[in-house]
Amino acid sequence: MEVTKSEKISNNGSVKALPPCCLKARSSAAEFGAKCHATVVSGWFSESQSRSDKANKFRYYNNPMWPGEAHSIKVEKILYQGKSEYQEILVIESSSYGKVLVLDGIVQLAENDECAYQEMLVHLPLCSIPSPRTVLVVGGGDGGVLREISRHTSVEKIDICEIDKLVIDVCKEYFPDLAIGFEDPRVRLHIGDGAEFLRNASKGTYDAIIVDSSDPIGPAKELVEKPFFETISEALRAGGVLSCMAESMWLHTHLIQDMLSICRETFKGSVHYAWTSVPTYPSGAIGFLLCSTKGPPVNFLSPTNPIEKQKEALRHGGELRFYNSGIHRAAFALPSFAKKELKAYCDSPP
Amino acid sequence: MEVTKSEKISNNGSVKALPPCCLKARSSAAEFGAKCHATVVSGWFSESQSRSDKANKFRYYNNPMWPGEAHSIKVEKILYQGKSEYQEILVIESSSYGKVLVLDGIVQLAENDECAYQEMLVHLPLCSIPSPRTVLVVGGGDGGVLREISRHTSVEKIDICEIDKLVIDVCKEYFPDLAIGFEDPRVRLHIGDGAEFLRNASKGTYDAIIVDSSDPIGPAKELVEKPFFETISEALRAGGVLSCMAESMWLHTHLIQDMLSICRETFKGSVHYAWTSVPTYPSGAIGFLLCSTKGPPVNFLSPTNPIEKQKEALRHGGELRFYNSGIHRAAFALPSFAKKELKAYCDSPP
Repeated sequence: MEVTKSEKISNNGSVKALPPCCLKARSSAAEFGAKCHATVVSGWFSESQSRSDKANKFRYYNNPMWPGEAHSIKVEKILYQGKSEYQEILVIESSSYGKVLVLDGIVQLAENDECAYQEMLVHLPLCSIPSPRTVLVVGGGDGGVLREISRHTSVEKIDICEIDKLVIDVCKEYFPDLAIGFEDPRVRLHIGDGAEFLRNASKGTYDAIIVDSSDPIGPAKELVEKPFFETISEALRAGGVLSCMAESMWLHTHLIQDMLSICRETFKGSVHYAWTSVPTYPSGAIGFLLCSTKGPPVNFLSPTNPIEKQKEALRHGGELRFYNSGIHRAAFALPSFAKKELKAYCDSPP
Repeated sequence: MEVTKSEKISNNGSVKALPPCCLKARSSAAEFGAKCHATVVSGWFSESQSRSDKANKFRYYNNPMWPGEAHSIKVEKILYQGKSEYQEILVIESSSYGKVLVLDGIVQLAENDECAYQEMLVHLPLCSIPSPRTVLVVGGGDGGVLREISRHTSVEKIDICEIDKLVIDVCKEYFPDLAIGFEDPRVRLHIGDGAEFLRNASKGTYDAIIVDSSDPIGPAKELVEKPFFETISEALRAGGVLSCMAESMWLHTHLIQDMLSICRETFKGSVHYAWTSVPTYPSGAIGFLLCSTKGPPVNFLSPTNPIEKQKEALRHGGELRFYNSGIHRAAFALPSFAKKELKAYCDSPP
């Protein structure tokens, strides 16, 4: 579906005319575009910021995930805004981070730093096992994770289960460099609830499962709970691997401890926490949960499948912007405070 | 000098009564305190944000170092504001990062994450050489770098040259956990210009020089130029080491390339770039320049002096919150984009 700049996709996929303020926004400047969305004020988007009704007055509110701080990005243009059955979707053209995808007021990705999250979430698990063949993605509607999996020539089948079709449609329109992942013929798209998909999945099927979800408020709430991890463990083959977005070590120690603790009970192989730098995420850092099931041991700390040395992999998805074997190993080194807080819950970092 | 909550230190060190709005702020809520400083609006401090004169209206402006983005921190209380000969000084009590020191509108440190910057800036160089004895600090008026150097029992003399005495006085009052560094009897404080201090320093004197400056706008401008690095190289002994704050790999590639390029010409030993995560700095990441002079080779990538294993070091400054040998080695692993952009200017990362 093509969406021109004077139209927007409605919930059911039909195209509606934009309100006059948005048209004005596009033809003039961000200052006007800004007026079209509550999180954009005076030409700046701000996570955790909401405008009140009175003109020229607004208030900040505490996002429940990150009380007391907010990252603001200067907006050149609001490219899209809409509401699906599950969430509010906003796409902005920022002046410093390229296009930015925002779901329910929270930044999901920005063109200029998405490489860090997508490449690490995918290659940390897939470079830790030899020749992965079948992969399942839960979430990942922007397609960036698929783009990265596609680099692995050993992969034969990529299932993806995304709950929100509108996210996919919007990303195909505004983030073609990510949504290109959907064009790989190995990809099979399932629109639906990831937790339910996993409950119905055949046992011992996948070499790797990658959970690319939003934060555990709203539609992704179930994806940090024990039954979800149990179905993942069952859907993986012996010695299969899980990679899962796992928040910031600076902000969410308790949530990370809870997730690691559940995984420690569920996965009988190794359980690790890794992290990397993503400027547009809160605290500028994001973590990854890496687990393996009982079976051939997986040493996540030492990549056995160095994707950056495979010419075919680079021809496929362009050059790797972030991942390499050095940054893979480094991702498992934790600051002392995090090492102390997490050591009871996962395998020792280097 | 003790400053009570209803007083503030003026430029010349005398104590002045605070204006009524600030008194009101303290007795009620951040909403009122906020009105006392142009960077604090509706109870939030925002880097790159300035309020215009009209009530209920304000504008963001682009900070020259970080156009197009701003990090905002919820303010519980404005603890101090003043203006020295060199810069505006602001201390806020934030709701999520503890007390925060702001110079000329830019966050210098926050209690909750200062450990990352201070510990890495100091221990990356001092743990890379055996038994450092004499150390010079340029800048570092908050005392955090001194606190970390103090852990090294081999050190006999610590010179520090800070240009702004008011920063030291304010930090002694509001950041005692950092300013404690000044209490070490090995410390000799020099108030003055770091570049000039180095021009007059004896040749071949120091085992290590640590540059803890603010960004290269305002008083620290000279500290990224070639003559400055030449005097550092001359003041170091053969095989001596430099550690210098070197901006974010995400935002300031050209500035980092310039600094590395100057150091490559100036230092005849090794030249490296390392980085770590600091949530309250722009992009959530900060870099370090690590160089050594001609002489006994220094392998920065492999710490020879593991401070975290020395009981005496931990008794001295309390537990290390961030640094350990694993995170030391990891700091030199660069993402592919940074590796590519910096490889012509420094030694290869792992």
